[in-house]
Amino acid sequence: MATMRATVFHGKDDIRVEEIERPRAGVGEAVIRVTLTTICGTDLHILRGEYPVRPGLVIGHEPVGVVEELGAGVTGYEVGDRVLVGAITPCGQCRGCLSGHAAQCGHGEGYEALGGWRFGNTINGAQAEYLLVPHAQANLAKIPDELTDEQVVLLADIASTGFSGAESGGVRIGDAVVVFAQGPIGLCATVGAKLMGAALVIGVDGDSNRLRMARSMGADIVLDYREVDVVAEVKKITGGGADVTIEALGTQETFEQALRSLRPGGTLSSLGVYSGKLHIPYDAFAAGLGDQRIVTTLCPGGKERMRRLMEMVKSGRVDLTPLLTHTFSLDQITEAYALFGERRDGVMKVAIKP
Amino acid sequence: MATMRATVFHGKDDIRVEEIERPRAGVGEAVIRVTLTTICGTDLHILRGEYPVRPGLVIGHEPVGVVEELGAGVTGYEVGDRVLVGAITPCGQCRGCLSGHAAQCGHGEGYEALGGWRFGNTINGAQAEYLLVPHAQANLAKIPDELTDEQVVLLADIASTGFSGAESGGVRIGDAVVVFAQGPIGLCATVGAKLMGAALVIGVDGDSNRLRMARSMGADIVLDYREVDVVAEVKKITGGGADVTIEALGTQETFEQALRSLRPGGTLSSLGVYSGKLHIPYDAFAAGLGDQRIVTTLCPGGKERMRRLMEMVKSGRVDLTPLLTHTFSLDQITEAYALFGERRDGVMKVAIKP
Amino acid sequence: MATMRATVFHGKDDIRVEEIERPRAGVGEAVIRVTLTTICGTDLHILRGEYPVRPGLVIGHEPVGVVEELGAGVTGYEVGDRVLVGAITPCGQCRGCLSGHAAQCGHGEGYEALGGWRFGNTINGAQAEYLLVPHAQANLAKIPDELTDEQVVLLADIASTGFSGAESGGVRIGDAVVVFAQGPIGLCATVGAKLMGAALVIGVDGDSNRLRMARSMGADIVLDYREVDVVAEVKKITGGGADVTIEALGTQETFEQALRSLRPGGTLSSLGVYSGKLHIPYDAFAAGLGDQRIVTTLCPGGKERMRRLMEMVKSGRVDLTPLLTHTFSLDQITEAYALFGERRDGVMKVAIKP
Amino acid sequence: MATMRATVFHGKDDIRVEEIERPRAGVGEAVIRVTLTTICGTDLHILRGEYPVRPGLVIGHEPVGVVEELGAGVTGYEVGDRVLVGAITPCGQCRGCLSGHAAQCGHGEGYEALGGWRFGNTINGAQAEYLLVPHAQANLAKIPDELTDEQVVLLADIASTGFSGAESGGVRIGDAVVVFAQGPIGLCATVGAKLMGAALVIGVDGDSNRLRMARSMGADIVLDYREVDVVAEVKKITGGGADVTIEALGTQETFEQALRSLRPGGTLSSLGVYSGKLHIPYDAFAAGLGDQRIVTTLCPGGKERMRRLMEMVKSGRVDLTPLLTHTFSLDQITEAYALFGERRDGVMKVAIKP
Repeated sequence: MATMRATVFHGKDDIRVEEIERPRAGVGEAVIRVTLTTICGTDLHILRGEYPVRPGLVIGHEPVGVVEELGAGVTGYEVGDRVLVGAITPCGQCRGCLSGHAAQCGHGEGYEALGGWRFGNTINGAQAEYLLVPHAQANLAKIPDELTDEQVVLLADIASTGFSGAESGGVRIGDAVVVFAQGPIGLCATVGAKLMGAALVIGVDGDSNRLRMARSMGADIVLDYREVDVVAEVKKITGGGADVTIEALGTQETFEQALRSLRPGGTLSSLGVYSGKLHIPYDAFAAGLGDQRIVTTLCPGGKERMRRLMEMVKSGRVDLTPLLTHTFSLDQITEAYALFGERRDGVMKVAIKP
Repeated sequence: MATMRATVFHGKDDIRVEEIERPRAGVGEAVIRVTLTTICGTDLHILRGEYPVRPGLVIGHEPVGVVEELGAGVTGYEVGDRVLVGAITPCGQCRGCLSGHAAQCGHGEGYEALGGWRFGNTINGAQAEYLLVPHAQANLAKIPDELTDEQVVLLADIASTGFSGAESGGVRIGDAVVVFAQGPIGLCATVGAKLMGAALVIGVDGDSNRLRMARSMGADIVLDYREVDVVAEVKKITGGGADVTIEALGTQETFEQALRSLRPGGTLSSLGVYSGKLHIPYDAFAAGLGDQRIVTTLCPGGKERMRRLMEMVKSGRVDLTPLLTHTFSLDQITEAYALFGERRDGVMKVAIKP
Repeated sequence: MATMRATVFHGKDDIRVEEIERPRAGVGEAVIRVTLTTICGTDLHILRGEYPVRPGLVIGHEPVGVVEELGAGVTGYEVGDRVLVGAITPCGQCRGCLSGHAAQCGHGEGYEALGGWRFGNTINGAQAEYLLVPHAQANLAKIPDELTDEQVVLLADIASTGFSGAESGGVRIGDAVVVFAQGPIGLCATVGAKLMGAALVIGVDGDSNRLRMARSMGADIVLDYREVDVVAEVKKITGGGADVTIEALGTQETFEQALRSLRPGGTLSSLGVYSGKLHIPYDAFAAGLGDQRIVTTLCPGGKERMRRLMEMVKSGRVDLTPLLTHTFSLDQITEAYALFGERRDGVMKVAIKP
Repeated sequence: MATMRATVFHGKDDIRVEEIERPRAGVGEAVIRVTLTTICGTDLHILRGEYPVRPGLVIGHEPVGVVEELGAGVTGYEVGDRVLVGAITPCGQCRGCLSGHAAQCGHGEGYEALGGWRFGNTINGAQAEYLLVPHAQANLAKIPDELTDEQVVLLADIASTGFSGAESGGVRIGDAVVVFAQGPIGLCATVGAKLMGAALVIGVDGDSNRLRMARSMGADIVLDYREVDVVAEVKKITGGGADVTIEALGTQETFEQALRSLRPGGTLSSLGVYSGKLHIPYDAFAAGLGDQRIVTTLCPGGKERMRRLMEMVKSGRVDLTPLLTHTFSLDQITEAYALFGERRDGVMKVAIKP
């Protein structure tokens, strides 16, 4: 039996790098040798027991690698191809996918809430030497030779998610946009809003390091919620409210401020993962009569999405490498989790090299 | 001084038909002699002190009439023209209107939440012998000769609002749609969902009379919330959740059920007027990751909207006259309010003839 | 070697029912036993040598059948399931499909113009006892027990195509729509425009039988181009031009009239298959400055599309059985082609039972 | 009688700066003192007799000025306000405007093809000391103090038109876009495509100066049609065809190349003004089955559009001043026309100061 090293979740605050069985590709599947991956905020939720996954699962969902094995029915690829795989791996053939909601993939049949998110959630994930990719035909995106692993690894989740905040919000040329929270996802939402033509992007956070990063990634104005009344300030700057607000954290406070910062007819685009109850104060919501919209989006995946995002990197329009502040080997991954979880040393994202 | 009879709000539970000054048309305005109007659920909220307007205001916002006077700058109309005027009277020239959000009209300049709703809210309304129409050029819709007042009066608000529930929800051919509450607005949402091609429209209410009406207006299935677990039933019927749900009441319970009845990727289209806090249970909301949308819409107004709705009546596709269950003169309007408020005698909507 | 009877194209005006090898299902494929199919106008073009396909090909692309064999990797189906398969069989996993253009399917990789249309075009088709279905997971749509083969067979192509004329045209509540040509596709476009809320649908043709059928399928007005100046008449009826016009034939004359019948800001939705050059007279096109759009659509396929269309039949909103005017066995198919090609006996569509 | 200097069209090749009567503001109108304007390619068509206007008309449609007089009913402005007025001056209150097609404005009632374009077309225009602005409430856009006249004058037409090429084309993050012709409108389309997130913008022209300008305004690649087979090159670079192509000239050749350069499912966004017949070769058009769209757009106007574009300049995202290569006084305007018409001295746009 061939084995591999992998990051296995055993329970709350207990992940270990272990030797486990190496996966084999079945019909329509592929196995890739992972050359670069990273840790996501969601992985921290899993580690802390806040998002439940089954013990024994390999975690991680942002893989760059090389094709090692191709299952029956997968065509147009060769062993050795360098590929990027999105965090979300739609089948392309179920009701969810065929309806344009690939992130709610039903794996061949109906649809399932969050069903497209499988890596490190319902099947083994990317923080390992090898990774089984389901529905490989729809999910292996070849990496152009001129791009490095580091240039593309953050496209798998944070760029795809962050940009979708602006896309689902329908940002238009001339819009004023506010992005609440400037962690990796929020920074990518800031970048996405600029890419779509916003005249003004206001980044909000309470961490000076992140606000500095927001400025350097394109925010026109940054607001520190520790220092100003964000809603009042947004209304003043925008002359009554933003066209689009993007929530990139998942708390009642940021959600409510995002709603209160909207103009009538505006859109709140929500990326956060919420727990507990969310309250919508009716006064913030124009009593339901303000022609406002609340839209939610789970990271768009699939190889065409990845291809498009790599095109943005190739033409120099997007460069997320400044976010990769630290590098670790797979065997050092518990150190990496600690650093990332405690936000030490100005960490934004960590590169993990199996 | 010319006078007229009008329904004046004096305070909670106190409206009176009185003789007041008749309006004159200023620049860009018109005065119409009201020939038919009706009472809206919102008027009941005003009467009960639940929605604040200033004492002394004439209420009502659904006018059919005849042009009596045209102000300077209004062209293409003549005294004597029969016209329908929407409940919402956009100016067409402010930032809100020019952005496609005419219901959030700023009256020439910026925008204002609910700003397009003026009749019986911020200026004198339609339950009177004469009515001053602001921005007349944008709001006087000529009534085709072949249509009666009764055939068009319900287009001003309830048809425009109800249909917009389906329109903002983006109903498509083949959709399964649930409409929560089958009062006048909800019934029109039911009609609207059918008009846009829904395969299945499920009407929900707890009033047998309204459920019967829902069936006769086109609902394929009706559910009585007193008898069945609506969310479970919807999920069973639709195989996992509706594509679009329309909330037409404005309560926590209906909002929450509308959210829980959605499939991943579905849209909740909200028409209700909410008070207090709304709660969004995170489990009903797929933790914010279900690609779901919540959209709100205030009644679309303006003469082009009214023209389009009258075309639907003209071609026989829409007939709302069955909803006009009772008729009163203006002087009997307090009786009409009582009947309508208490939902006596199977009342759906009342016709008021000044 | 197992064999089957099939309709084989040998060259211009030469099709024969022959005994050929029965297909076997490979990875991701299925074989169905065809229980009902029909002949399409496109098949006539093939027979007449106007649309080139390779000699030896089995033609036909509208299959209803029963699953006979399932290839590796196809899940959720069983031998014996009754299924409808769309004329277009997208893979769901290529660049075209993942971009929302499934009819331009690249079969796993990029995209290809018309690539989704394979049956009877680039692979063996449906006028046979057995049919190999590629990408079966994305294309086998189970037929609800309560629906007969006859009720669903016309969904595979003509309903899906005809309705898409209205969908791509963006028909809205209150629109005036003109449909040029009232053959099977045009009639379905007429039905589709009504389903989406058009106030007025005008059907145009020069065949009295088809104009009668148009009226019975929902056209509010029919115009016989042999008797009236269609463009002038449309402009008069609509007060300046239609919101949407649908071209369902594929000739210069109908295309040009569809363009001239549009209002400024209107949309020409084209379904026809054109040959030779199309001319756009600049005066018909407002010199390119009328905010008009020309959109083209190839029949949407895939199992979710078929499921949605079957829902419309199930709820009684769509009934296309009146179009199935004649029935033939597979062995009589050359007679069926003759009748259909010569438009004898008021034929609209023929049912072929293998 | 107060008089003013103005550029009057007298017939083919005959424009003269003359002393004519100064306009007065009627109801809903304003008069501005023009401080800066420019010459448009359309003005050249008028001068050459290629686009017919009535002799005696003052031409020009790109005005920056100061409010001199406000008619009855215009509110929220004061004499002395610096304003930008779009080339298109919608009323906001007709069927065209209320349907979202403000450029096809019907001046209070229905709609009219190109009806929103009035300055220098159907009413006196901007190449004069004073200008009467119709529907002033919808069209006077106050200029922020920090912006100069030169920074905003090109927004009135060329930026609004050029950007709309990308907007109507639906450019998305990751798209490959080709812009045919790199004159002022085409350059703005190039800028617009970048603003909306195109990964790759290819600029096409046959003038080396314009190709250089295209590069400096953001084109990733420029193609000289004198040197390469543009369609073949686009297909090679994009791997099969562009997502969006923008036609910014108005000739058969550029239109046809724009169509041939599209991928299946792509959109041709046309800005050009065409004369004579346009031919659509059916092979370039996938025989009408390629899910392709052709969209046309006339310059969006109105004060909200101008406000949004000025926000883009204010935040530094758009700077069109490099296009203002020459400056003339109003009395030198015939020299300016000559220079601009002959494309001498690397002229892109000329500033005219009354």
